[in-house]
Amino acid sequence: MAESRPALAVDIGGTKLAAGLVEPAGRVLAWSVVPTPSGLDAEQLWRTLDALISDVLAGVDPAELAGCGCGCGGPMEWPSGVVSPLNIPAWRDFPLRGRLAERLGIPVRVHNDAICLVAGEHWRGAGRGRGNVLGMVVSTGVGGGLVLDGRLVAGASGNAGHIGHVVVDPDTGPPCGCGGRGCAEAIARGPALVAWAQSEGWRPDQSDATARDLAADGALGHPVGVAAMRRAGRALGIAIASATCLCDLEVVSVGGGLSQAGPLLFGPLEEALRAHARLGFARRVSVVPALLGQSAGLVGAAALIFAADRYWSGD
Amino acid sequence: MAESRPALAVDIGGTKLAAGLVEPAGRVLAWSVVPTPSGLDAEQLWRTLDALISDVLAGVDPAELAGCGCGCGGPMEWPSGVVSPLNIPAWRDFPLRGRLAERLGIPVRVHNDAICLVAGEHWRGAGRGRGNVLGMVVSTGVGGGLVLDGRLVAGASGNAGHIGHVVVDPDTGPPCGCGGRGCAEAIARGPALVAWAQSEGWRPDQSDATARDLAADGALGHPVGVAAMRRAGRALGIAIASATCLCDLEVVSVGGGLSQAGPLLFGPLEEALRAHARLGFARRVSVVPALLGQSAGLVGAAALIFAADRYWSGD
Repeated sequence: MAESRPALAVDIGGTKLAAGLVEPAGRVLAWSVVPTPSGLDAEQLWRTLDALISDVLAGVDPAELAGCGCGCGGPMEWPSGVVSPLNIPAWRDFPLRGRLAERLGIPVRVHNDAICLVAGEHWRGAGRGRGNVLGMVVSTGVGGGLVLDGRLVAGASGNAGHIGHVVVDPDTGPPCGCGGRGCAEAIARGPALVAWAQSEGWRPDQSDATARDLAADGALGHPVGVAAMRRAGRALGIAIASATCLCDLEVVSVGGGLSQAGPLLFGPLEEALRAHARLGFARRVSVVPALLGQSAGLVGAAALIFAADRYWSGD
Repeated sequence: MAESRPALAVDIGGTKLAAGLVEPAGRVLAWSVVPTPSGLDAEQLWRTLDALISDVLAGVDPAELAGCGCGCGGPMEWPSGVVSPLNIPAWRDFPLRGRLAERLGIPVRVHNDAICLVAGEHWRGAGRGRGNVLGMVVSTGVGGGLVLDGRLVAGASGNAGHIGHVVVDPDTGPPCGCGGRGCAEAIARGPALVAWAQSEGWRPDQSDATARDLAADGALGHPVGVAAMRRAGRALGIAIASATCLCDLEVVSVGGGLSQAGPLLFGPLEEALRAHARLGFARRVSVVPALLGQSAGLVGAAALIFAADRYWSGD
């Protein structure tokens, strides 16, 4: 019997927490978003999420749902869903899957948020019908997920797709939150771009300016804004070139806040990609904006429930 | 009925051509090797291979074989097996699969030589029983193949696994044969190491000295030999770190002539890998010498015939 019940989808990132009800065909029925609070402890953050879920359920009994799919920032132990998101310091070894299962009483599947993004884009977005897709999220961090030969790749511990930690400048690149140096994320994550721009003389109007403000200033012709997007685009383009050669990709979908920067980002990205991805097969790759926009993470989280044959290989 | 007939396995690289008869369990019954001739045209090279095959068959009727598996240097059109090996200029768009099928009259499957190496190492060698393995060949070129979630990854065009074209030094790295710059292969391939060492004052006894001679001099304490192995190890370690983060690998097996250099190569490789693969899941990766040695390519080529469910997704 075809599944007709909706799923609860949850998307937990360094910037925002989102939850929604998603139909079996992938349409998001209702959703709610709050900025990820900072300065909270693990239980306070959980209570924020709990309230968000109650808000979205709006009285619906969880037992009437097909299940709960959840994306969360990496890294995590997978498939147990014990999470330690780099950009959410409050949660270290937090048993997210267990807590959600306890809260809801239905099957819960947790995967990396960027893996959910590529699942969403492959299931219902820019990668639909393609066998070899890298989905990227460029935002507070730089994450990703891989679909190869038509199936979501889990890897040894469910962490395949960490494109942000492909090394693009091992000698002179900045230190990375992971402890390494010169990772794509260390250069292209929003906060790193803002810090770099400020060191180069950018003086935004607000004290809490983000990479979106930086991109907006770049679009207005501010030279540091332009240079920052070039810096990010180049780092991402080199990382994509490496991933394309290693995985023989057809499509790379790029989502997340910074992907809104448009040609300022994608121009230098393409330039670096084309300079480095030179083998015949690698030249065929195309880089496209994520099609599902802000809802991709929720759609992908629902795909863990509704299209488990392709997107869920855990227990 | 279990297959009892042997397969013909062929392994075509920039350094040597090999052919052998391989049992269904993976044992190599008989094999023959010749150095890859240079200065020949496409048909002359084919005749060299044809003679090698006749030598190995030693009167056996090809019709008594289970099939022919063949590894060849990339890139290639796959699964059609039209090959253009970077390090064998005589063959450009050479219809290798078709020519072998015509010669033998039995099913022929052609894959990238490095993909065959990982298939061999996963089927019968260092990766046995592991789900997520990168097999590398460091020799005239730097190639590789990927097994993820227990299956050989083909990618969009059968070219997944090109670890040699992961970028490790985009700014100041040497130009690469692929047309890019700073690829791992551009630094760590044998001939590049020899050229670099000579530019640094290495004066080998023979005019046709190879990276093996360079490694041997390094083992005797020659500082340029040591530095060259360090240079190669570092480039490979950074590329492996990137691949480990992207693909969540458990094991990386390293074969090919240069892997014989031992600690001179593997020490700096480990150092660079551990400096850059810092996320918890990535630290767990282990780098091991390929277990099958010189026969890995032939065993893997046979795996295309005998374990097609895991290693062959073409037509």
